Amino acid sequence: MTHGKFVVIEGLEGAGKSTAVAAIQALLTQQGIEFINTREPGGTPIAESLRTIVKQGVDGEQVCDSTELLLMYAARAQLVETRIKPALEAGKWVVGDRHDLSSQAYQGGGRELGVDKLNAIKQIAIGDFEPDLTLYLDIEPSLGLSRARSRGELDRIEQQALSFFERSRAVYLEQAESKDNILKIDASQSIEKVAADIHTALNNYLVAL
Amino acid sequence: MTHGKFVVIEGLEGAGKSTAVAAIQALLTQQGIEFINTREPGGTPIAESLRTIVKQGVDGEQVCDSTELLLMYAARAQLVETRIKPALEAGKWVVGDRHDLSSQAYQGGGRELGVDKLNAIKQIAIGDFEPDLTLYLDIEPSLGLSRARSRGELDRIEQQALSFFERSRAVYLEQAESKDNILKIDASQSIEKVAADIHTALNNYLVAL
Repeated sequence: MTHGKFVVIEGLEGAGKSTAVAAIQALLTQQGIEFINTREPGGTPIAESLRTIVKQGVDGEQVCDSTELLLMYAARAQLVETRIKPALEAGKWVVGDRHDLSSQAYQGGGRELGVDKLNAIKQIAIGDFEPDLTLYLDIEPSLGLSRARSRGELDRIEQQALSFFERSRAVYLEQAESKDNILKIDASQSIEKVAADIHTALNNYLVAL
Repeated sequence: MTHGKFVVIEGLEGAGKSTAVAAIQALLTQQGIEFINTREPGGTPIAESLRTIVKQGVDGEQVCDSTELLLMYAARAQLVETRIKPALEAGKWVVGDRHDLSSQAYQGGGRELGVDKLNAIKQIAIGDFEPDLTLYLDIEPSLGLSRARSRGELDRIEQQALSFFERSRAVYLEQAESKDNILKIDASQSIEKVAADIHTALNNYLVAL
């Protein structure tokens, strides 16, 4: 049986990841490709519990920066081991709402925790595992945040200063530039145009397989 | 103000850590030294939540080995940052039921995750922070486990094969041998004798300060 592919949507808050995931799902369904969805942090009962702890804290206590980093990778280790790898091995595709690049951008760039620390912990958590294709929705932080704010309450990450997101975006852009399997999509366009760009990018990928 | 000291009790299941902690508390109280207690994994609301996840899983899902390692260190990072360091800086002593040496023994030795992995993740979580004094209660795994079993239900760690604990003990012994600030105490003795040995060891430490 052919291995499935792991396709990930990345981008700052308000970039339109949910719409993008829906566009991918529509195309895969149309092509008769079986898939599962994941979101990070989260995607298994344990990983969802860790997500809640990172986002909301426990009894008024909030996570420290290094705790946050370790919990993000604990959730990822659990998800990759128990859901993503088994699905890929069973020939299914996996459509991911965020994956490791988010940690590189938010913890590495935003919180400035450093590439070496990130790489060391990534190796412990998931080794060399990585997505086959990442679609990065690029957007100005100020525009993304105003979109996210209009949706309602902000969580811990979303309450960061604008400079945090500028640093995160810089990592996203740098990685998209340097890696062939990360494609940048202009997310400041209309929802319809973004969906069309995603459709084209994924279709090109399917044709080349 | 003088910095407090961080004294840790270590050892396999059934070694008598609770009794040892009580003996330390009694001596510190007698000497008029203010202290707080910690237990690992745990000791803060977030760290206790992580302890529960490691020990019981969530909705029937159990943690994978690398998830367990990351959660242990996430809990430790949170505890050191929010409770241990502030207490020491305020001049209080900290009496710890387990600390980093447990991860070295259980995850490094028991699960054979390797020293390099452990050191890398320790650096991320707590840097070079370490206890001032560690009292290691040494016991044959079979004896310790039979004591632990008589106390009731066994958790995930306690359900491991005997070889797991043999490997864990080997790391404890090796570390106790190579480091001056780790003292080995024979925990196969009677409770009274173990308590007396702990009293002597801590008293010697206090006198030398």
